[in-house]
Amino acid sequence: MTRVAVVGAAGYIGGELLRILTTHPEVELAAATSRRLRGRQIDGVHPNLRGRTRLAFCAEDRLDHYDVLFLATPHRETMRRMPEFLGRADTIIDLSGDFRLRCADTYEDYYGVPHEATALLGTFVPGVPEFHRERLRTADRVSVPGCMANAGILALTPLAEAGLIRDEITVDARTGSSGAGATAGSENLHAERSGALRVFAPTRHRHEAEISQATGLPVRMTATGVEAVRGVQLLCRARLADGAGERDIRSAYRERYADEPFVRVVAQRRGLHRFPDAKILSGSNFCDVGFALDPESDGVTVIAALDNLVKGGAGNAVQCMNIRLGLPESLGLDFPGLHPN
Amino acid sequence: MTRVAVVGAAGYIGGELLRILTTHPEVELAAATSRRLRGRQIDGVHPNLRGRTRLAFCAEDRLDHYDVLFLATPHRETMRRMPEFLGRADTIIDLSGDFRLRCADTYEDYYGVPHEATALLGTFVPGVPEFHRERLRTADRVSVPGCMANAGILALTPLAEAGLIRDEITVDARTGSSGAGATAGSENLHAERSGALRVFAPTRHRHEAEISQATGLPVRMTATGVEAVRGVQLLCRARLADGAGERDIRSAYRERYADEPFVRVVAQRRGLHRFPDAKILSGSNFCDVGFALDPESDGVTVIAALDNLVKGGAGNAVQCMNIRLGLPESLGLDFPGLHPN
Amino acid sequence: MTRVAVVGAAGYIGGELLRILTTHPEVELAAATSRRLRGRQIDGVHPNLRGRTRLAFCAEDRLDHYDVLFLATPHRETMRRMPEFLGRADTIIDLSGDFRLRCADTYEDYYGVPHEATALLGTFVPGVPEFHRERLRTADRVSVPGCMANAGILALTPLAEAGLIRDEITVDARTGSSGAGATAGSENLHAERSGALRVFAPTRHRHEAEISQATGLPVRMTATGVEAVRGVQLLCRARLADGAGERDIRSAYRERYADEPFVRVVAQRRGLHRFPDAKILSGSNFCDVGFALDPESDGVTVIAALDNLVKGGAGNAVQCMNIRLGLPESLGLDFPGLHPN
Amino acid sequence: MTRVAVVGAAGYIGGELLRILTTHPEVELAAATSRRLRGRQIDGVHPNLRGRTRLAFCAEDRLDHYDVLFLATPHRETMRRMPEFLGRADTIIDLSGDFRLRCADTYEDYYGVPHEATALLGTFVPGVPEFHRERLRTADRVSVPGCMANAGILALTPLAEAGLIRDEITVDARTGSSGAGATAGSENLHAERSGALRVFAPTRHRHEAEISQATGLPVRMTATGVEAVRGVQLLCRARLADGAGERDIRSAYRERYADEPFVRVVAQRRGLHRFPDAKILSGSNFCDVGFALDPESDGVTVIAALDNLVKGGAGNAVQCMNIRLGLPESLGLDFPGLHPN
Repeated sequence: MTRVAVVGAAGYIGGELLRILTTHPEVELAAATSRRLRGRQIDGVHPNLRGRTRLAFCAEDRLDHYDVLFLATPHRETMRRMPEFLGRADTIIDLSGDFRLRCADTYEDYYGVPHEATALLGTFVPGVPEFHRERLRTADRVSVPGCMANAGILALTPLAEAGLIRDEITVDARTGSSGAGATAGSENLHAERSGALRVFAPTRHRHEAEISQATGLPVRMTATGVEAVRGVQLLCRARLADGAGERDIRSAYRERYADEPFVRVVAQRRGLHRFPDAKILSGSNFCDVGFALDPESDGVTVIAALDNLVKGGAGNAVQCMNIRLGLPESLGLDFPGLHPN
Repeated sequence: MTRVAVVGAAGYIGGELLRILTTHPEVELAAATSRRLRGRQIDGVHPNLRGRTRLAFCAEDRLDHYDVLFLATPHRETMRRMPEFLGRADTIIDLSGDFRLRCADTYEDYYGVPHEATALLGTFVPGVPEFHRERLRTADRVSVPGCMANAGILALTPLAEAGLIRDEITVDARTGSSGAGATAGSENLHAERSGALRVFAPTRHRHEAEISQATGLPVRMTATGVEAVRGVQLLCRARLADGAGERDIRSAYRERYADEPFVRVVAQRRGLHRFPDAKILSGSNFCDVGFALDPESDGVTVIAALDNLVKGGAGNAVQCMNIRLGLPESLGLDFPGLHPN
Repeated sequence: MTRVAVVGAAGYIGGELLRILTTHPEVELAAATSRRLRGRQIDGVHPNLRGRTRLAFCAEDRLDHYDVLFLATPHRETMRRMPEFLGRADTIIDLSGDFRLRCADTYEDYYGVPHEATALLGTFVPGVPEFHRERLRTADRVSVPGCMANAGILALTPLAEAGLIRDEITVDARTGSSGAGATAGSENLHAERSGALRVFAPTRHRHEAEISQATGLPVRMTATGVEAVRGVQLLCRARLADGAGERDIRSAYRERYADEPFVRVVAQRRGLHRFPDAKILSGSNFCDVGFALDPESDGVTVIAALDNLVKGGAGNAVQCMNIRLGLPESLGLDFPGLHPN
Repeated sequence: MTRVAVVGAAGYIGGELLRILTTHPEVELAAATSRRLRGRQIDGVHPNLRGRTRLAFCAEDRLDHYDVLFLATPHRETMRRMPEFLGRADTIIDLSGDFRLRCADTYEDYYGVPHEATALLGTFVPGVPEFHRERLRTADRVSVPGCMANAGILALTPLAEAGLIRDEITVDARTGSSGAGATAGSENLHAERSGALRVFAPTRHRHEAEISQATGLPVRMTATGVEAVRGVQLLCRARLADGAGERDIRSAYRERYADEPFVRVVAQRRGLHRFPDAKILSGSNFCDVGFALDPESDGVTVIAALDNLVKGGAGNAVQCMNIRLGLPESLGLDFPGLHPN
């Protein structure tokens, strides 16, 4: 059994890691930390884990050494404490934003503070199995992308690689409330957030930089909070390169994703479900990708959806762990999602 | 024009008072206080009032004297400051819990603290036009009932008055999230509260005591938070007195409510809408009341619904003000609610 | 009193017309038709109107002649029956899609059927008070725009008129479920539609053609169903013409909307509510418009929100009626919307 | 591998059976029937199963013989066709209502039609592992209880068995929209059902009879549709027998459920999650049970929650199958549910 620990386990990403890891057949969850809730039973905070674990949250100074250490810690704090974390595990899987961007200037540009561990910046392998599987097999440091970023990377990279996209991409991202985390603020009050269509980032969202870094294309992204707890959906608009068409798009996706366990290219012609919708993906590690061509122009609209806490975070991180440990890649990640839900 | 002010106007009940008062043709909103947000534009906090008022929240020490002063202040604080408030207005309309219960012991029993202004306890007229209209015409001190309490009082008092109910009543109350107010706490986080069926008061909810006081009958109430921002629905179970039947119930309601502008007795035989539902009452001052008899027993189930911030608070308070000022009782309260919504 | 009738009053737009007209001080609702529900009490279908009207739905052959006739009838049927309708009223206010587009070819292109009353096409005045007020004062035939179209027209026309937009506009429209109407289909089942992010029109939505017609600019629109009953929000992306900037946009909106009773330009710098959100507009006739500039490019994002059944339909139609009848333009339309909601 | 088939697989209970069975390691899903959708790909209707099955719905005349046949067929039709079904499988697991009630008179009383297969009535073992596990090990005919019924049976039977309840029980049941099934009707339209608190069965709901049969006590149940797609919560009120108290209740539950894999007795003293809530149970096979005593009386309130399609249907049915086949009882049922959700 692989001994793993989760730092920052009281939050939503942390809780999702606990859900998956306590069900995972090859893993022993050895510790879960929370400064705020140390000493409290995990299942009092994450009630879905009743009967699954008797563990209590521990203080961070109780950590010893683990095979794999998952970091669900805030940005800034993560880069400051990374040297300490690196001494505590063979493999670090970081879910914070601090090591997603390779370039310190871009980090400062989007996070508004200078990077404080630039020497480590290049040393993390992107937690994107679909594009970095080989490196992940031996990676000791993994940085998992942001939830909206991962949807955008999976939606757009195959088209960018194949040279099918001309110039800029615009992304309209919609996200549920769990993406804002478990900290209470008036903006996250149910009465304020329920039924909202809240444009909270009209420009310059941090995940925009990740999509741009992965695709090598300029990206303009807008982020709107919609009525959902889980779920991210991206609607990406681009222009096709000269001569590119539906067949090229299909084959670009097929080449990349035909054998991928967790990316599904949705190609229904009709019906309720012909485009990806996060509604049916809650709890699952799938990212669904689909597209539509504008008959009147060279425009293409790519739609991607995932559960922000699973394929957009904890599930994707466990998929990376499975690869690193040489386990079957889908182990512990086989929940297909619910319909209706 | 009547000069009015609202103390504690940044909360949800306070905001609802502002909505109604800024639309009311016979009223001038002279001041709205908020300690936390003083100096901030009202419409920055209550965006539905954009273009309706240029007023900013003022500090409470800026209050002068008004024709009517509405108190949307927390319990305890309200009874402590009541002497000060009484000096600031001809008529006080209190929406806090402090002067709803006539008996100091019952107050302490349900609020967990001793009452600190017992001398004033008896001096407030209940803000229930349907049962205290005459006294309200001349009342200088009005105490508006709690949201769930008002639904229960309107649902049950006619039956209790007519002696149609035997022994105890059980009440299952369901309420939306706005009832918890505008203060952020993890229990009110959208991700935690959305879609919840949260039994937050299995016994001894404070509004239980108000219903019991009004009906003179023992009441056992359970309160559950349901997925809604606004809206309260009560499902009240009782046994009919010997010989009582459907006709008696109908006539008890008819006698009491035939001429009431804001209580509707729902008596459809069939269809989606045959029982009261708060869904269609958002923003309206109506309380809908209906009932069903158990063909197999002497049991009756009474169902009542209202908007907790309107007929359960601000709208009901303005109705009391209209009566006190000798204005048409429905003035400023004619919004019928939305379907669908 | 003006005698008015509503054809197709059992649907959601029809019901909203009834809500507004039964509260309107200068109007007598003389008839409301429904083939499907003729003979049934209106308030059995639209329960928010309990106590507001004792009218029952009548068959269409019972119609006589009215001052104003509102048509909430399906497209195709409307153009076929228009000659009959024209004989039944001094003023026709049509809420169907049949007379919104001036060009028969565009109609066929977007509706997939040839227009069957081309001779009448040019004879309807667009029901957009903000841009056609003078013509509406004397118009006997008014065609009210589609819900998403009206949001787009109000968001973009001032910028287009002022020559501030270069080339194409992309529009990402989000809409609640009431836009689909009251007819039951599996796609509108609660279990399927609840929490959905359903891209139901990736290209070529009919309202796209209306926005293009009004602004004179090419528009590419995508429509997504989101979790809401009411509400439309448009996120419009465009590039600014050379040299154009924030000041130009502000003044373009100010010139157009400074005196408009129902368009609010939202210009908060910060806070939850700094961009338009349909959440607070349910039941109100406001369209809120706001915008954000991309600091890194010449891109502008314009955001507009309204209640699809009010400013996107029935409320806008009544505003047109008020203008036509020389009544105060806001009569019967003063509900400000709710916060929270 | 056990060969299984599902009759009526296009509905919500049928789809949930497909979700669980296609993930179950010891089962081969051999056929799934739908009259309405025969020939259509399963994952076009249940999109969560994309990549999980290539099966299409088949016509019922294509059925051959199976180890286990699951019936997700309407009541009435099920009893009429039961002889045919019995010939098609070693074990029948019926999820319809037709064989839940042992007494034909009670069936007619609650279903409004006479039972048409009375000879078979006694031959079905109740699909309640917690109380009929031994009989289920050899049962060839299993009748799974209704969703609300199962919550009530699990909540109340231990107390009834231990003689802790005096006289009648009142049950207030709340249910999500998926319980109404996948057939479109105006009552299930999103715009009508969203945010509703719809009392659809004030008395005499069919599941009431099942709870009464299992507990041997008179039950008065009310059923309300609440805003949720999945989930049932029951709030059960009863009076304790003389001398009975908290300790007796705890030990009654402990004796019954200490070793049960899918019943969790919730006994937190405080916090958001101290009473059962279906919100965290979507997709899981758990039934959570908790209770509260009235300090002022002999009243007890028992609260139970489950996912109506899983422990209230398909999951419970698969648990019965696992028992019948001698497999580990939790096989294929280990999903813990999501928090937040």
